[in-house]
Amino acid sequence: MNKFHLESWIVGFVDGEGCFSISFTRRNGLKVGLEVRSSFSVSQNTRNKQVLLKVEEFFCCGSIRESKRDNTWKYEVRNIDELYKTILPFFRKYPLLTNKQRDFEAWSVVLQKIKQGHHLNPEGLKEIIDIAFSMNSKGYSRKYTKEELLQILES
Amino acid sequence: MNKFHLESWIVGFVDGEGCFSISFTRRNGLKVGLEVRSSFSVSQNTRNKQVLLKVEEFFCCGSIRESKRDNTWKYEVRNIDELYKTILPFFRKYPLLTNKQRDFEAWSVVLQKIKQGHHLNPEGLKEIIDIAFSMNSKGYSRKYTKEELLQILES
Repeated sequence: MNKFHLESWIVGFVDGEGCFSISFTRRNGLKVGLEVRSSFSVSQNTRNKQVLLKVEEFFCCGSIRESKRDNTWKYEVRNIDELYKTILPFFRKYPLLTNKQRDFEAWSVVLQKIKQGHHLNPEGLKEIIDIAFSMNSKGYSRKYTKEELLQILES
Repeated sequence: MNKFHLESWIVGFVDGEGCFSISFTRRNGLKVGLEVRSSFSVSQNTRNKQVLLKVEEFFCCGSIRESKRDNTWKYEVRNIDELYKTILPFFRKYPLLTNKQRDFEAWSVVLQKIKQGHHLNPEGLKEIIDIAFSMNSKGYSRKYTKEELLQILES
């Protein structure tokens, strides 16, 4: 009797291909000067787009879009409530087996800080920047260096 | 109650990071002029070496070695009997969910042909070359073009 456990497959696939990320964008309109976003994503070549539909169906949130730049498709969850209510509890219940688990843990601390509004004040945002830069390089799209972010924050 | 199913995790991880490959090496000592090898492998960055130990422990065969060229570690099974008795039945029992399944199916046809000794005669080897080149590019280390291989075979 072959049993298959989709939750465990998801963990294995995300251990290989998933990404928990924190990104920063300069926003002069915000008091702290920076917008923080967290996301969970899985990218695949075009030929594997169908498997992303399985992942989307499984989590019942997020969306799939094409990245023409590198001919890939990306499943991504960016909505903070969906990340908090769906993605976070899933990976708490089913921990990753690779070192990506450390990134998930750091990411989940940031997610909670955002949920509590800490990213809207300079002290909280500085803590978030520190955590983001402690993550593996893939976990953070390095548009700015840490020094640049702190400079924007302090200006 | 959190259940976790290691077999399904392995399938998900291999869907992301695994590789079923067929490779050819010129061997003037062989009648057909070419040696064929098939292998199953999973590569990871150094920081994830520990997860490869889990995979090795799970399959109870193969070995792990460092690739200094790109700073990765590779778990690899190359022994034809281990591939045939362990790797092949596992992925028959637990099919992959990505298009990598197609590569696995092509690979498993080649594996059986090798097991039956078809790689030792020109007709069988030609069939193997055709199948190998129908696989996704990652499935075959393209040291030679298909034309070069056929030329070696015919010479």
